[in-house]
Amino acid sequence: MSDTDDVLAANQAFYDAFAVGDLPGMSRIWAEVEPVACIHPGGPALHGRDLVMESWRQILGSGNRPGVRCRGAEAFLLGETAFVICYEELGGGVLAATNLFARQAGAWRLVHHQAGPTMPPQQQQQPMPRQPARVLH
Amino acid sequence: MSDTDDVLAANQAFYDAFAVGDLPGMSRIWAEVEPVACIHPGGPALHGRDLVMESWRQILGSGNRPGVRCRGAEAFLLGETAFVICYEELGGGVLAATNLFARQAGAWRLVHHQAGPTMPPQQQQQPMPRQPARVLH
Repeated sequence: MSDTDDVLAANQAFYDAFAVGDLPGMSRIWAEVEPVACIHPGGPALHGRDLVMESWRQILGSGNRPGVRCRGAEAFLLGETAFVICYEELGGGVLAATNLFARQAGAWRLVHHQAGPTMPPQQQQQPMPRQPARVLH
Repeated sequence: MSDTDDVLAANQAFYDAFAVGDLPGMSRIWAEVEPVACIHPGGPALHGRDLVMESWRQILGSGNRPGVRCRGAEAFLLGETAFVICYEELGGGVLAATNLFARQAGAWRLVHHQAGPTMPPQQQQQPMPRQPARVLH
């Protein structure tokens, strides 16, 4: 497989662990050596592996955790790091997401994730005006 | 300056160009060699320099463009790439943002940006539940 294929496979593994609530699998996906951060939709900027994994423990352990599917993933290589942009179909809504990976001992590990609300791609004509949260909603 | 200082300075230059509507300055900040992508709040995942710069042309040229200030920026180095997480104060609302940089000819250039609505840090007790856009809002 190419590096791009490997990154997309790591990205899919993240969503597979998310979809089935696999916390050990989720933990294996996140980097252990590199800095780790995460911005959940509507949430604060978290950094540090312990804080990020605790947030996933809460999300994956939630009784009303929605199903999630990744759509339209595209990977961009930057040497030993790579990022993916994609859409998350989540309980009938759609989020746009960034997933940043670093190569660690030959494997692509997640170092940062951000997701935020968007419209389904087919409903979008152009980028929305750059407005603050209170105006957007 | 350290690499971290340089990355934070590049991040601030991005927000300075944003704040004053400086499109040429904004163009100089974005990478020319590496892949470029951008997810504006509520908008689609854009990729390609032309599409990303066109989105900034629209935003910076808008008559009702709000002021923007970057707060709480933290930089994380990954060799020749680096990412910043920060908050954007924008017209009275707050967004959480990711800015990904790559070193190009000795200068840190922006390769990806995502921002999405969040709460001001002092109002946050814990990450919000992972819910889709239609539930969040």
